[in-house]
Amino acid sequence: MTEITQTFEQTIEALIDAKKYSTIRDVLTTLRPADIAIILESVDNTKLPLVFRLLPKELAAEAFVEMESDQQELLIRSFSDAELKEVVDELYVDDAVDIVEEMPANVVSRILRQADPDMRKMINEILKYPEDSAGSIMTTEYVELRPDMSADDAIKRIRRTGIDKETIYTCYVTDKDRKLIGAITLKTLLLSEDETLISEIMREDAVCVNTLEDQEEAAKALSKYDLQAIPVVDQEGRLVGIITIDDAIDVIEEETTEDIEKMAAIMPTDKPYLKMTPFEIWKSRIPWLMLLMVSATFTGMIISSFETALAAQAALTAFIPMLMDTGGNSGSQASVTVIRSLSIGDIEFSDIFQVIWKELRVAILCALTLAVVSFAKIQLIDVLLLGHTSVTIGVTLVVCFTLALTIIAAKFVGCTLPLLAKKLGFDPAVMASPFITTIVDALSLLIYFAFATLILKI
Amino acid sequence: MTEITQTFEQTIEALIDAKKYSTIRDVLTTLRPADIAIILESVDNTKLPLVFRLLPKELAAEAFVEMESDQQELLIRSFSDAELKEVVDELYVDDAVDIVEEMPANVVSRILRQADPDMRKMINEILKYPEDSAGSIMTTEYVELRPDMSADDAIKRIRRTGIDKETIYTCYVTDKDRKLIGAITLKTLLLSEDETLISEIMREDAVCVNTLEDQEEAAKALSKYDLQAIPVVDQEGRLVGIITIDDAIDVIEEETTEDIEKMAAIMPTDKPYLKMTPFEIWKSRIPWLMLLMVSATFTGMIISSFETALAAQAALTAFIPMLMDTGGNSGSQASVTVIRSLSIGDIEFSDIFQVIWKELRVAILCALTLAVVSFAKIQLIDVLLLGHTSVTIGVTLVVCFTLALTIIAAKFVGCTLPLLAKKLGFDPAVMASPFITTIVDALSLLIYFAFATLILKI
Repeated sequence: MTEITQTFEQTIEALIDAKKYSTIRDVLTTLRPADIAIILESVDNTKLPLVFRLLPKELAAEAFVEMESDQQELLIRSFSDAELKEVVDELYVDDAVDIVEEMPANVVSRILRQADPDMRKMINEILKYPEDSAGSIMTTEYVELRPDMSADDAIKRIRRTGIDKETIYTCYVTDKDRKLIGAITLKTLLLSEDETLISEIMREDAVCVNTLEDQEEAAKALSKYDLQAIPVVDQEGRLVGIITIDDAIDVIEEETTEDIEKMAAIMPTDKPYLKMTPFEIWKSRIPWLMLLMVSATFTGMIISSFETALAAQAALTAFIPMLMDTGGNSGSQASVTVIRSLSIGDIEFSDIFQVIWKELRVAILCALTLAVVSFAKIQLIDVLLLGHTSVTIGVTLVVCFTLALTIIAAKFVGCTLPLLAKKLGFDPAVMASPFITTIVDALSLLIYFAFATLILKI
Repeated sequence: MTEITQTFEQTIEALIDAKKYSTIRDVLTTLRPADIAIILESVDNTKLPLVFRLLPKELAAEAFVEMESDQQELLIRSFSDAELKEVVDELYVDDAVDIVEEMPANVVSRILRQADPDMRKMINEILKYPEDSAGSIMTTEYVELRPDMSADDAIKRIRRTGIDKETIYTCYVTDKDRKLIGAITLKTLLLSEDETLISEIMREDAVCVNTLEDQEEAAKALSKYDLQAIPVVDQEGRLVGIITIDDAIDVIEEETTEDIEKMAAIMPTDKPYLKMTPFEIWKSRIPWLMLLMVSATFTGMIISSFETALAAQAALTAFIPMLMDTGGNSGSQASVTVIRSLSIGDIEFSDIFQVIWKELRVAILCALTLAVVSFAKIQLIDVLLLGHTSVTIGVTLVVCFTLALTIIAAKFVGCTLPLLAKKLGFDPAVMASPFITTIVDALSLLIYFAFATLILKI
């Protein structure tokens, strides 16, 4: 699919240069909003308003939603009040909120001035919820039914009011205080007899989330129960909005990216990579780099305190990188496995002993394999092939024993730290490779010098 | 939500011990299938068939789908043929295929014997598609309409046949050769006049995937275009199935886990962590560990060849871990950012120069910051506080220059390798931290000894 839009971008560029505007309009109207947004991204900023105005109203609004916020801002600034109103009128309220959140204050007040009073009220309601809460991503455009309606009444109501609703496939049943008492799918309604009462066929135990809950919880519930939408209720249990599955997918993708960034020692940001300035990227990367660099002071101190030992047995130094890297890799395998299993709900803190016991057995298998391979490799390559006479059998044994014990220690640290972080309410994802590596480096050196002292008597 | 099921598990355990089976039945029937599956997971294997038989038929089949394959197999082995038929009859065909794929041959043939002929034919059709293809995860239970039907006819047809369909919210329009010619949502149908023809209101440019395309492509298209379902067509463009959004979410989660595992030098597996034996985990982790360990031979060789230099300036050794770690972290920040951006479609190979230019500026900012901080840290802590007289200004400068240049090299390697891997048709995810670290280690040592030779004249 990516290849096709690529070609379209070049075509549109050529058509703009040739000023063939009606052709551009005809071409763009055959496409879907998401693809139009991709094509418009490559259009020169000075030409963008011109090309955008070629689109039919409804399609223009749909494509607008899919665009990046810098292009949205540029367009809004070029719109007349009447044009802005046309776009805003076509938006679903949750999309309008997404756009408003990214805009500077003066653009926001222009958008709100053009929105009709109902829309303005809904936008302001949603803006009140804290960032990343379920309330902040919900939409208030859903179908609400009463328990004493018949299936036929309900379908008639949907046909009358459905046009503005973000989904009509799951409807929510409320009592006279607007408290959520059930949910019913359009499928159930359509497959029921006309006169059946909603109260007889609705699901009473509708899964719902609270406005203040984390958006990730809402997304997980949608995915776990295979729902199309999940209702959002306030502290009193009153229905205030719904979150639809397409928004949940975006949340899951966003949160996964955050997890992956944290695992790589990056402070998460909301912006796509190519939209960030080098200074913004620097800000997201430097804190962990600096912290980890400074904490490597400990490894330096350990090496310094064994300076004389290293001078006596110069061959030992050459194996330090291999020992540290293998330890780091072993530890990060365990930590990343545990972090991901925690995040998709495969394990939780109470599984800690089962996890440790499993990792211990894996660690012993890995330690044995690598120690044996390492022994063979050192004797064959370093001693026989490269003729390093300083690599004695004693040194080889120190290296192999250290390797084995480091792997076991690394897997233990790697699997326990994320679980402990979770228990203490921190994000397990920061306990990934870089953090584990720093700890395992120090451990591996301590083990190395302990074995060296013991076996080589230095 | 996790806390609640936890308590339920204990309640059910106590009720099983007290043999209060009708209470168990009453409790379980208030729950959703996904939660029942979680609770059943903690039930002892010898009691599982007994507890499962307490569930009403339909709920039993729904919970069965959500269970882990080892428990499904145990249950199937305990079922009579009649019981097995009851469960199989309630399954959607894509769920049946998922189950069949995990079972040993003798269980599979029992399942197929109990399935009715239509179901058996559909299962066999889907099983023919290659693993991870769109065809292998599709369902054949969808609503098919003809262009010359009226909206009212279509709704009547849905009401008549909808019960067995996995979704009725998007229907697909085919011509007399079963070629896909359009799609129409139930919303459009319901909001149209009764006598409107389908051909007038359907979307003709329905996004579709081919049976042999990667399941990930199908999932991405569903998410990009905010669809509820995507039609799957064969080589001749004939409609053969659909993939629904809930399956797409599972695919996205699975593929992301694979990416994350590859980034941590683990060979991806399909099994959840707790279900894997230590030997299976070992098999998934040892190949990369061994490869990376052996390639660390190069770093050892570099250090060996500078043995005399290190002996002359013993202070140099203590900074090796810090330089290697900071280089590795800088590189993996860049590589992980690029890998994730590639995977969510934010960048592609053609952006390579833009990426390199951005990373270069970020690298220079990071390099300057860390070199300055490192200089201050060495002079304040190592020299003044710890009184290491061997750390001269010369040594400090060697360390800081190496640090700066290593960071720049690491960011360059980190951002280019995943893009090149993508271009050459490899998976960019393996170009993450462990791989980059091994390369950057060797680079940082070469830079280190070059600066040492230059500045310290050793």
